Amino acid sequence: MSSSDIFIGETIGTAILILLGGGVVAAVVLKASKARNAGWLAITFGWGFAVLTAVYISAPLSGAHLNPAVTLGIAIKDSDWSNLPVYWGGQLLGAMIGATLVWLAYYGQFHAHLTDKEIVGGPDAETTQAKAVEAQEKGAGPVLGVFSTGPEIRNAVMNLTTEIIGTFVLVLAVLTQGLNDNGNGLGAVGGLMVALVVVGIGLSLGGPTGYAINPARDLGPRIVHALLPLPNKGGSDWSYAWVPVVGPLIGAAIAAGIYNVAFA
Amino acid sequence: MSSSDIFIGETIGTAILILLGGGVVAAVVLKASKARNAGWLAITFGWGFAVLTAVYISAPLSGAHLNPAVTLGIAIKDSDWSNLPVYWGGQLLGAMIGATLVWLAYYGQFHAHLTDKEIVGGPDAETTQAKAVEAQEKGAGPVLGVFSTGPEIRNAVMNLTTEIIGTFVLVLAVLTQGLNDNGNGLGAVGGLMVALVVVGIGLSLGGPTGYAINPARDLGPRIVHALLPLPNKGGSDWSYAWVPVVGPLIGAAIAAGIYNVAFA
Amino acid sequence: MSSSDIFIGETIGTAILILLGGGVVAAVVLKASKARNAGWLAITFGWGFAVLTAVYISAPLSGAHLNPAVTLGIAIKDSDWSNLPVYWGGQLLGAMIGATLVWLAYYGQFHAHLTDKEIVGGPDAETTQAKAVEAQEKGAGPVLGVFSTGPEIRNAVMNLTTEIIGTFVLVLAVLTQGLNDNGNGLGAVGGLMVALVVVGIGLSLGGPTGYAINPARDLGPRIVHALLPLPNKGGSDWSYAWVPVVGPLIGAAIAAGIYNVAFA
Amino acid sequence: MSSSDIFIGETIGTAILILLGGGVVAAVVLKASKARNAGWLAITFGWGFAVLTAVYISAPLSGAHLNPAVTLGIAIKDSDWSNLPVYWGGQLLGAMIGATLVWLAYYGQFHAHLTDKEIVGGPDAETTQAKAVEAQEKGAGPVLGVFSTGPEIRNAVMNLTTEIIGTFVLVLAVLTQGLNDNGNGLGAVGGLMVALVVVGIGLSLGGPTGYAINPARDLGPRIVHALLPLPNKGGSDWSYAWVPVVGPLIGAAIAAGIYNVAFA
Repeated sequence: MSSSDIFIGETIGTAILILLGGGVVAAVVLKASKARNAGWLAITFGWGFAVLTAVYISAPLSGAHLNPAVTLGIAIKDSDWSNLPVYWGGQLLGAMIGATLVWLAYYGQFHAHLTDKEIVGGPDAETTQAKAVEAQEKGAGPVLGVFSTGPEIRNAVMNLTTEIIGTFVLVLAVLTQGLNDNGNGLGAVGGLMVALVVVGIGLSLGGPTGYAINPARDLGPRIVHALLPLPNKGGSDWSYAWVPVVGPLIGAAIAAGIYNVAFA
Repeated sequence: MSSSDIFIGETIGTAILILLGGGVVAAVVLKASKARNAGWLAITFGWGFAVLTAVYISAPLSGAHLNPAVTLGIAIKDSDWSNLPVYWGGQLLGAMIGATLVWLAYYGQFHAHLTDKEIVGGPDAETTQAKAVEAQEKGAGPVLGVFSTGPEIRNAVMNLTTEIIGTFVLVLAVLTQGLNDNGNGLGAVGGLMVALVVVGIGLSLGGPTGYAINPARDLGPRIVHALLPLPNKGGSDWSYAWVPVVGPLIGAAIAAGIYNVAFA
Repeated sequence: MSSSDIFIGETIGTAILILLGGGVVAAVVLKASKARNAGWLAITFGWGFAVLTAVYISAPLSGAHLNPAVTLGIAIKDSDWSNLPVYWGGQLLGAMIGATLVWLAYYGQFHAHLTDKEIVGGPDAETTQAKAVEAQEKGAGPVLGVFSTGPEIRNAVMNLTTEIIGTFVLVLAVLTQGLNDNGNGLGAVGGLMVALVVVGIGLSLGGPTGYAINPARDLGPRIVHALLPLPNKGGSDWSYAWVPVVGPLIGAAIAAGIYNVAFA
Repeated sequence: MSSSDIFIGETIGTAILILLGGGVVAAVVLKASKARNAGWLAITFGWGFAVLTAVYISAPLSGAHLNPAVTLGIAIKDSDWSNLPVYWGGQLLGAMIGATLVWLAYYGQFHAHLTDKEIVGGPDAETTQAKAVEAQEKGAGPVLGVFSTGPEIRNAVMNLTTEIIGTFVLVLAVLTQGLNDNGNGLGAVGGLMVALVVVGIGLSLGGPTGYAINPARDLGPRIVHALLPLPNKGGSDWSYAWVPVVGPLIGAAIAAGIYNVAFA
């Protein structure tokens, strides 16, 4: 694979991953969406089929990493770091494009949600502490959740641990994928497997932190959230931003280490 | 493939697509259905398995486009427009047959729903503006929704954008399918992949407009809605009808263009 | 395949089909079940994975028809009626064994449900018409629903039509399966496809009658319901019993006819 | 396969099975989880994708039994008991590691749930019988349910019967898997099949006892529950612990016997 194929494949693939992944969160949490309140199962399957679609489309070009942690794990496994910068660059750019496309596809829903008086308080609402908290919970918080993850209980060690464990499972599954498909490349069945593994991680390990398990998936959209002209959008929670970047990278490194010891 | 095989395959396949796709909406929204209120996840999986079943049945005859936007994307990719009219004709005819079969399968439910006093108001109900709106929301609106899509927030540019983005993802996935299956044709696994991609698009991008992403899927059943002798059925919302036709065709053209530049 | 393999395969396979299919209804509707009120999506996926499991287990022995309508369709397609009685016999026997296993697996739940005072009324409850109707709706009706199907709106022509349409889709998909799998037999992927087609038919066409789409699936358990010593079980609704037998056979015949004209 | 590969594969695989399987229960039942109240469908799919992920990862090393009942069934089928102790040892160790990882991933949620005044009663709550029962139902009971199974209606014969029937279906499907995959080993498709069979067993036969269908899945985490320093955790229900060990082994033996008679 040429560097340009890798860059283009990762950019397109990660854009589609985030478009569909962020999209399902928008669909479930925003006002004036037909899917509103469709629940956690809808969100986890939505992210899984986002992986499926993105892998399917980008696998012929770049092998469909779509995740800096996956790229790190494969680099450690193969002791080959030459393409890592190209992968990471495409992934971050793709994630930002995908988040922007979510904003375009749900433009009316974002506006309706963030300007609804019942959700964020009217112009004459008293700006008490309680009102601000309520508006955050019903308005700006869910909107940030369309872009980036945040923990239910904020504790750096605990949140980091959860992200490490989740990404460890993902990357170990991706690395063993080659052992199951007899060297035929990712293909359709491999993409389905990885997609269902991601649904499984979401269902089983998503409860505490919302399962970033992918630095680009969290950082790229958070940057876009900070840049977009959304009304009443609130802050982008930068104090948490390092956790879904560092945690997945640690989890991937552990998975690659165990792979090299037990499976290679 | 002969023209007659294509026409028969697309007619049967699109009929089954719309029978099952319209059927799941009828199952979830109509009175006196065991599936009533089964939710958005049921609707999106129902449409996905409708694609699966229809692809499975029609792939041996026509290659299972089942969607004028898919046919357009493939024609642009291959620079071969010779069969486009046959595909489009079969698709529109099939969609109309499918919508009619939904009406037959749910005949009692349509009648029960549209004549229920609590839903559409009794014969002696005052025909105030408020009553008419309520009857539309509970009665005629959901019934039209069995046939055709409609937006949550009506805005031509926004609705068109959402349909363009959704169809872009679908057609790009369909076009790359050939790269993943090593030229073995659509087959069982390819049909499953496309079906799950459609579930994913529904979950992630269906919130604003109900994801037509297929001109025949929307136009054919809308024509049938206008023709069927349903009591209290209301209008067929023709002012919106061009959006789910034009949007998907634009999205398909963009996907084919990007495919030819980046993947070919 | 020998006659004894066919009979054993169909008996075991249909027993597992009904064990898991009836089981999921018991799980969702009976008192003292962890899955109570898990909803229509659980029921339709449960029946689909029942098909998957049963096909997987019986395919090597009998080709996994598991449904007299499927056997009829294949017999018409192949103009070969020699094994039809063996298939039908195994299917009916298997369905009766499966229904009995549901009763064993949910023995405590059946008893708890049918003797609960809040559900069926206490021993000193006035046996008014209203009380009887309520007890039927909450108690004996759901229990019969574990075994056999029943319509939401009782009308022979309408119910027959719905069962014909649903079975038509199923049998057409089964017949075209051979065209998609390049003559490799049903195998794992083929079984998954048929299972998901059944989920799709359930979601999309199950609303009016509960989608028997299989004479043995309905008749066998209904006989067992009539024989089992369940307290307060009520009648077995024999007046409806012919519809889910005749409808599926008609649907299968139509599917085989269309297959022979358009696909063969 | 060498004994060390088997032991490592079963340990890693069963650890991942229980991490994801216990994880989904924690996600759905514990306070301060994004997935709280996601329902029975989430739990059954979560366990299924836990199987998928664990099979995928461990199949190349150990063939992915991950369940002492499966190992027993295969030993009976092959009349080869040489590796059974290695498999069973790895499975029990892996299950204990997996349960510990669930505790780490949901550390904050366990603490929040078990110390919440509304759930387990405050320090000054009267320790009446009624209070204790309520705290058990809302607090310690669900937490034990993250680790081990328990019946809705406690009756040894009935509970044993349900576990026998469920495991019988699982092991018969695993044994026939070799007949469907033409001797290609478990691979990706075989793992998906078994995973969906487990979803099906959960949906259809999980209602009465919570479907252990695996002695290691229940016993390993129960030991960990007894050892972990969880506040207000209550007892580990050891009186029931033999049922989900003995039942699955009996079910597996019956399945292997029937396999050897009818399929071999």
